[in-house]
Amino acid sequence: MPEPDTIQSALDAAVQRARRNREGAPAAYIPELANVPLERTSAAVHLTSGDYLAAGDAADHRFTFQSAAKLLPLIGLLEERGPVEVFGFVGSEPSGDSFGSVARLETHGPKPANPLINSGAISLCGQLPGTVERRVAWIARWAEKLYGAPVPIDEQVRESERGSADRNRSIAYFLKHGGIISGDVEETLSVYFALCSLSGTVRESAHLTAILAHGGIVPGTGRRVLSKQTVAIVVAIMATCGMYNESGNYLVSTGMPAKSGVSGIIVAVVPGVAGVAVSSPRVNDKGGSVRGHMILRDLSRNLGWRFAVASSGA
Amino acid sequence: MPEPDTIQSALDAAVQRARRNREGAPAAYIPELANVPLERTSAAVHLTSGDYLAAGDAADHRFTFQSAAKLLPLIGLLEERGPVEVFGFVGSEPSGDSFGSVARLETHGPKPANPLINSGAISLCGQLPGTVERRVAWIARWAEKLYGAPVPIDEQVRESERGSADRNRSIAYFLKHGGIISGDVEETLSVYFALCSLSGTVRESAHLTAILAHGGIVPGTGRRVLSKQTVAIVVAIMATCGMYNESGNYLVSTGMPAKSGVSGIIVAVVPGVAGVAVSSPRVNDKGGSVRGHMILRDLSRNLGWRFAVASSGA
Amino acid sequence: MPEPDTIQSALDAAVQRARRNREGAPAAYIPELANVPLERTSAAVHLTSGDYLAAGDAADHRFTFQSAAKLLPLIGLLEERGPVEVFGFVGSEPSGDSFGSVARLETHGPKPANPLINSGAISLCGQLPGTVERRVAWIARWAEKLYGAPVPIDEQVRESERGSADRNRSIAYFLKHGGIISGDVEETLSVYFALCSLSGTVRESAHLTAILAHGGIVPGTGRRVLSKQTVAIVVAIMATCGMYNESGNYLVSTGMPAKSGVSGIIVAVVPGVAGVAVSSPRVNDKGGSVRGHMILRDLSRNLGWRFAVASSGA
Amino acid sequence: MPEPDTIQSALDAAVQRARRNREGAPAAYIPELANVPLERTSAAVHLTSGDYLAAGDAADHRFTFQSAAKLLPLIGLLEERGPVEVFGFVGSEPSGDSFGSVARLETHGPKPANPLINSGAISLCGQLPGTVERRVAWIARWAEKLYGAPVPIDEQVRESERGSADRNRSIAYFLKHGGIISGDVEETLSVYFALCSLSGTVRESAHLTAILAHGGIVPGTGRRVLSKQTVAIVVAIMATCGMYNESGNYLVSTGMPAKSGVSGIIVAVVPGVAGVAVSSPRVNDKGGSVRGHMILRDLSRNLGWRFAVASSGA
Repeated sequence: MPEPDTIQSALDAAVQRARRNREGAPAAYIPELANVPLERTSAAVHLTSGDYLAAGDAADHRFTFQSAAKLLPLIGLLEERGPVEVFGFVGSEPSGDSFGSVARLETHGPKPANPLINSGAISLCGQLPGTVERRVAWIARWAEKLYGAPVPIDEQVRESERGSADRNRSIAYFLKHGGIISGDVEETLSVYFALCSLSGTVRESAHLTAILAHGGIVPGTGRRVLSKQTVAIVVAIMATCGMYNESGNYLVSTGMPAKSGVSGIIVAVVPGVAGVAVSSPRVNDKGGSVRGHMILRDLSRNLGWRFAVASSGA
Repeated sequence: MPEPDTIQSALDAAVQRARRNREGAPAAYIPELANVPLERTSAAVHLTSGDYLAAGDAADHRFTFQSAAKLLPLIGLLEERGPVEVFGFVGSEPSGDSFGSVARLETHGPKPANPLINSGAISLCGQLPGTVERRVAWIARWAEKLYGAPVPIDEQVRESERGSADRNRSIAYFLKHGGIISGDVEETLSVYFALCSLSGTVRESAHLTAILAHGGIVPGTGRRVLSKQTVAIVVAIMATCGMYNESGNYLVSTGMPAKSGVSGIIVAVVPGVAGVAVSSPRVNDKGGSVRGHMILRDLSRNLGWRFAVASSGA
Repeated sequence: MPEPDTIQSALDAAVQRARRNREGAPAAYIPELANVPLERTSAAVHLTSGDYLAAGDAADHRFTFQSAAKLLPLIGLLEERGPVEVFGFVGSEPSGDSFGSVARLETHGPKPANPLINSGAISLCGQLPGTVERRVAWIARWAEKLYGAPVPIDEQVRESERGSADRNRSIAYFLKHGGIISGDVEETLSVYFALCSLSGTVRESAHLTAILAHGGIVPGTGRRVLSKQTVAIVVAIMATCGMYNESGNYLVSTGMPAKSGVSGIIVAVVPGVAGVAVSSPRVNDKGGSVRGHMILRDLSRNLGWRFAVASSGA
Repeated sequence: MPEPDTIQSALDAAVQRARRNREGAPAAYIPELANVPLERTSAAVHLTSGDYLAAGDAADHRFTFQSAAKLLPLIGLLEERGPVEVFGFVGSEPSGDSFGSVARLETHGPKPANPLINSGAISLCGQLPGTVERRVAWIARWAEKLYGAPVPIDEQVRESERGSADRNRSIAYFLKHGGIISGDVEETLSVYFALCSLSGTVRESAHLTAILAHGGIVPGTGRRVLSKQTVAIVVAIMATCGMYNESGNYLVSTGMPAKSGVSGIIVAVVPGVAGVAVSSPRVNDKGGSVRGHMILRDLSRNLGWRFAVASSGA
């Protein structure tokens, strides 16, 4: 494993190089998302040794986690109810379609293809019991455990999501029609919007992936918060489904199981080595962070952080 | 990493348990494939330390590699021409459809989704220059390098494939229509049938995956035969696309990037640790080895061989 | 053209033969639909000469029109706003998919394939201006004009539809997402449910198709209520899209442009000759009336009522 | 029915107006098709009374019939073997996809959607028994009967088709894989290419549709050559499937069941009134004749030739 100094240098260089790229623009389908400082770019690496390294605007660049937060209900439900129950509501296959597809639900049966597309995360939010408040409290508890710090819900963004969510409503009513969720659809969507509106920095984001990289133990503490089984399942699903219908290309180009959010965040796992998080609001037409991709590719290339070869000693 | 003795015990136990399962039957779509001893079951582990361990009928259980051989043209062409050229002929995304789909070519553009489905492997066979003989000789050269021993073409199986290949012909002519391949379609298919008819045992099969697990170096020799880049790409594609439209479920359940063949072979990679190969002709209705799946799940569970946690030390 | 007596005999014989068929069952997806006398069977022919002929339980067999009522907003909007505006909200192609498909909207653009599937009719209901009450009043006005008698909304059925409509909600929100409809989705659906819940007998149903068969003039009155252009468009769309993804087979077997409803009604047009309506609650698994199909096939065969040959004099 | 003089005037005016349109270009996917005089435009009407009217370059404008000839095997096999056998090899539903789709065969079962798309016509050509020569002779016999004059095979075009037919080969091998056709694929395709290469003028083309318009009797002779049943089936299929995935729009805009060919021919039926044929090599990007569409729309509008209203007397 490279020394922290080497990693810090690689991180700084990668952020510096990425800043020069002016492609992409903030996602505009939710008004609030477009309303961010355009050039913010931040990156963090949380080593399994416990060291935390950051670069760019890491300290004061706050953003909502959006789809990167879809890891949370998957992890929480795997821990509390186990894989048999979870995979009754959602599959674990890459869908080959875009994240917001309704068509797939109709052509391949009512169960969402995997938990990291919209329909899958809505399905899981629909399995949480109780009122909206109780379900949001469940999310808050898991957020604190996984992110290692408070990650408040940005209520302005949540409200903005609610007003721009007819496609997600279409998905949710189809899930209800298919018997995958039950109860009030707007309530389940309200929980889902709260999830997407969790907000923080790359520090909290990298904390979550560092736990995954460290097999379920919080680096530097020896404290196990997730079972090995949950970690194994989540990282496998990130590998095949984390980047929607670009997951394959992405795994080839970076070798790191990852999950993106349309706010420009990407979180990634280097098993045994580190949790990574990068963020920049300039996203491409598929909603992936342009600079984030660059930084991850640079780290992969320069530090040899590819799951296939990282541990081979070759 | 577990001791060889522990691994040998786990291997023996897994094979013994798998033998008790009588589900599945030999694939019948090619007459020659059905014509094999039904209960043969073999498994091999080639550690990156160089140790070779086997169980079951490993020594005298010969079979054709079928789709597991699709790794060969991908590896050979990546080494000789590089990823830019290779990914001009083939993508690297899971297709979401079955291995023999023509529809995907029409709905998602003429380039096959990835190199491990029929259309992708036919596309790559179509990029090899020269006569059928010259192209088959290219395959033989790469086979010797990767499998570490002669793996002859079973000409009876090759002939059987040729007589049962109208779906592959449909695929190949569609690829030609789309400009992905050129030249004589029957010649390219003849090369493809030769590839699928390479025959050997789990020993040769595990040799190939051991090289991938060891970052491109033949275990026990220090001899590099593949670049790190090729290994990283191939293992990433095995992770997302190796088991067709079950790749996601499979990676969740075993954590090992793998590739199956309809003869009942599955080869798998535990990065940094071992190459694995299992074989049994009883396949399920999707063409995957029933006992092979069992053995890999047992090894994954009992030895902790999951890419996400193997190297995490957790 | 056959004499009324000949037609009456053919009608009686066809109904009698159909009654012996016990296949099919009332549609159950809306509770209220299942709650009908199972063996009711009625048929009516309204000749362009003005004669009205009926058979079976015609006089006292009331039912809701369901999808057969989808002709109403198409006709009304064609008359009031013309085809250019109408075909901005909806296409005129058979969809090849089932009546309640969401997938087609996603794969072929947001505009519904045609006005006679659910998405198409919901789209047209969404173009009507004003409150729910005002829009329902618009429907009532057109209903009186086309059906020639009051056809009240069955509020129990309408309520039952509302409670079983998550698939239609999914469709409607997708239409809103795509910009095809705007405003409150539940209000537009309330109008759509009112439309589907129009109720009457085969007499009113045949009145509508008799107007279409007579080129827009109410038979026996000389009073034009629809333009020739509207009639031409509506009958063409019935020919290609009226029976969902069985339209082609149906036109081959009966030769009459038609529209079915899941309550067991089928209305059909014999251009220049007659409007036809048949009804029986026993429907097949695609929602088409089993006995209705039989009666129409018998009339087609025995009276030569096929659009292709009816007027050829051959 | 309008007088012949009125029709002749309408025909002349329509051709004259169409000539001014310079949109579209000859189809280029078969080299020979591009090699035609660009501005040729011809139109013919064969009334059921027996009168023949022509306009434009009708007399000396020869072309190959291409897909318009797909009516021939459908008609011939319906007459010789009946609908039950024919609809065992081919459906009668609009496909919603383009004429050369392979995907539909895979997603909706091996039987082609209808006899007027490539896969359907190839399927029917595959049902003809015997050698290529014997099958081509069968086509020649039916051609003489239906077209009323010799329509020779243009062997240069046939050869050109053969060299540009990898998509059709893909279709044919998929049909063979699915058990829809058997025997040598190249032989069946050779028959299909011969069919597409039948050549003549609008006179012969209108003769065929005049028989259909006259219920199976050759106008002016009283000689029945087709059963009413065959006519009813063929015209119904033309209505729903004749213009590929534009059939619905087309029927709405002209009201005439029709069939197009990529050489620029369109044949159409006005039941009870006339057979029509128009031709001009300028086709749009879907392979439909631009000027042909214009002429048919003008005739429909100016002569009231819409199946829905033609016979209504309204």
